[in-house]
Amino acid sequence: MKSKKENQKLHLIDTDIHERVLYEDLIMYLDNPWKKYITDCNWMQEKHMPYVQPAIAGVDRADARVPDGRPAGTDLEFMSKQLLEPCGHEIGILTGALDPSPSSMHGWYEMATALASAYNDWQIENWLEKDKRLYGSVHIAAGDPVAAVREIDRVGSHPKMIQVLLPIDDIMWGDPYYHPIYEAAQRHDLMIGMHHNEPPIYFGKWPRYFIEWHTLIPTAHMMQVTNMVFNGVFEKYPRLKLMMIEGGFTHVPHLMRKMDQQYKDLRHEVPWIKRMPSDIIKEHIRFTTQPLEELTKKEFLQLIDQMGTDELICFSTDYPHWDYDSPFEALPPNLDESLQRKLFSENARAFYPKLPQIRKEDA
Amino acid sequence: MKSKKENQKLHLIDTDIHERVLYEDLIMYLDNPWKKYITDCNWMQEKHMPYVQPAIAGVDRADARVPDGRPAGTDLEFMSKQLLEPCGHEIGILTGALDPSPSSMHGWYEMATALASAYNDWQIENWLEKDKRLYGSVHIAAGDPVAAVREIDRVGSHPKMIQVLLPIDDIMWGDPYYHPIYEAAQRHDLMIGMHHNEPPIYFGKWPRYFIEWHTLIPTAHMMQVTNMVFNGVFEKYPRLKLMMIEGGFTHVPHLMRKMDQQYKDLRHEVPWIKRMPSDIIKEHIRFTTQPLEELTKKEFLQLIDQMGTDELICFSTDYPHWDYDSPFEALPPNLDESLQRKLFSENARAFYPKLPQIRKEDA
Repeated sequence: MKSKKENQKLHLIDTDIHERVLYEDLIMYLDNPWKKYITDCNWMQEKHMPYVQPAIAGVDRADARVPDGRPAGTDLEFMSKQLLEPCGHEIGILTGALDPSPSSMHGWYEMATALASAYNDWQIENWLEKDKRLYGSVHIAAGDPVAAVREIDRVGSHPKMIQVLLPIDDIMWGDPYYHPIYEAAQRHDLMIGMHHNEPPIYFGKWPRYFIEWHTLIPTAHMMQVTNMVFNGVFEKYPRLKLMMIEGGFTHVPHLMRKMDQQYKDLRHEVPWIKRMPSDIIKEHIRFTTQPLEELTKKEFLQLIDQMGTDELICFSTDYPHWDYDSPFEALPPNLDESLQRKLFSENARAFYPKLPQIRKEDA
Repeated sequence: MKSKKENQKLHLIDTDIHERVLYEDLIMYLDNPWKKYITDCNWMQEKHMPYVQPAIAGVDRADARVPDGRPAGTDLEFMSKQLLEPCGHEIGILTGALDPSPSSMHGWYEMATALASAYNDWQIENWLEKDKRLYGSVHIAAGDPVAAVREIDRVGSHPKMIQVLLPIDDIMWGDPYYHPIYEAAQRHDLMIGMHHNEPPIYFGKWPRYFIEWHTLIPTAHMMQVTNMVFNGVFEKYPRLKLMMIEGGFTHVPHLMRKMDQQYKDLRHEVPWIKRMPSDIIKEHIRFTTQPLEELTKKEFLQLIDQMGTDELICFSTDYPHWDYDSPFEALPPNLDESLQRKLFSENARAFYPKLPQIRKEDA
């Protein structure tokens, strides 16, 4: 073998060397608007899609950053002062933000299970047992249903755990593979909470723009509702209920109609479904409000009329994200007192059996 | 090497031999309802998903089979007697049923292009030039846009070709890759017709039941509309229009609202879009009625009210498929004469510039 010195005489042509750029170094070479997506919009270099949140603090409200510099949503005291007290929350349900969701890790289920378990312990210790108003979500790694059931049995009987959280990405949750999770949830009077995740189930690949991704979130929710209902999950677990979180509800009248029409035509294929799908939805599924489109009172009531009931909608803020809905602004003004009462609290209270069933002021 | 005879002494154990079953041979081993899906419902063995159409003639109306035994939709004279004459069609637009669509062949674009081209010639010779009432769709293999443009230029100026057909499967048609197709379509005053295809774009994989697949067709349509609008296709080709075929329209009010809301929040990402998405939809996109859910007159008018215009909906039958909508039964009874006129003909007439622009009775 030749020495280093001798190698230098080879006039080496190396045809693959990775020099590396940081996006901050590209700023001076970029024109606007492209430049400002990096300087102002927290463009996420590590994401594998073009992807930008429109707010200066990325996915979060800029004013939700904890004063000591920690990210939004990390501090109970600050959240209480910014959200729970001024809005008059009697109850707040923690959805959690563990990224990626342990159920979205498509391999290494053991690590995912450990992360979920740690998250649940942390949530109980730092949030649920520190504030009477807060209730929580059991996180699991659903890819290993046996381990997931073990985790539900471990923390699901905690009095402040009220739902099991499943992410909406590329898994169809009605599949029998996941049914043991629903059996365990039902055993502990836990509901299922579903919240979309990345990558999106729709498209099967990234859409080209964030605005497409964000516009089409309801389609992912429609798929899960359709899949859960026609797979017979609610026939098999009659006390189980499903909360569809952050999909809004303006797609629901269409979905109920379409499912009923298809059931009339095609019910022979799913003979275990004994009722109209819209009746199954009315009994078993609820939809959170955020992100609510701007609706007039007339438009809002028209949607309720089309759903045939005012009991399917539950208020949510999505705090601390940039598209947060304030309880003072999200709903159309001048809704009847009794309807407001249902939307802001009683529909959710009726849905989660483990929540206090009497209003604080009535107690 | 040993001779055959000597091999026989090896007491050979062959560990892979494929004996083959035909589903008809399994019937005697099956119980109902599973048995009847094969005997009565035209279960398609060659499909790679569990997949059954509910009708005894599979995807077709049983009574649409040509008396000489050929499949439904193959004979102009029979179609005329069964559909065009009794329903009083002034105009019928042929969508075509070339399975798979040449644009859905994900390879061998040369063969796909040749098939599309042959189909167009066959359609012109056997349908468009034989019946004054019929107008046609240019089929292309969109995977090779250069060849697709060549085909559009070849047959697109035929006076009875009025749209270019694109299937909805796993391609997002707003992508710039396909824009030369829109330029060519606009050049020939052709609109784009989009019709769902298999496999579905939603899920990214087969759903577990046909009823899910069929219920969620509108979600695939929502994705394409969102994608076409936000990719700026209609800003780039201002005379281009898009007909969404066989997705119904009851999802459209939700979609318009959601797109507008998202545009308000996220328009910085797509600065080439200068108007509210709902305004772009109103100018450029129409939706065919079939398969129409059962709606009362009040419900139907509520949806039109929510869309803000009665000009987006065009009647369609989907003949000869089992879920065909009859013009005498599909729409709610007692709609105003002027609205019926729009839905049954004038909205489509205004949409396709190459259709006769004066009603036959008014001519």
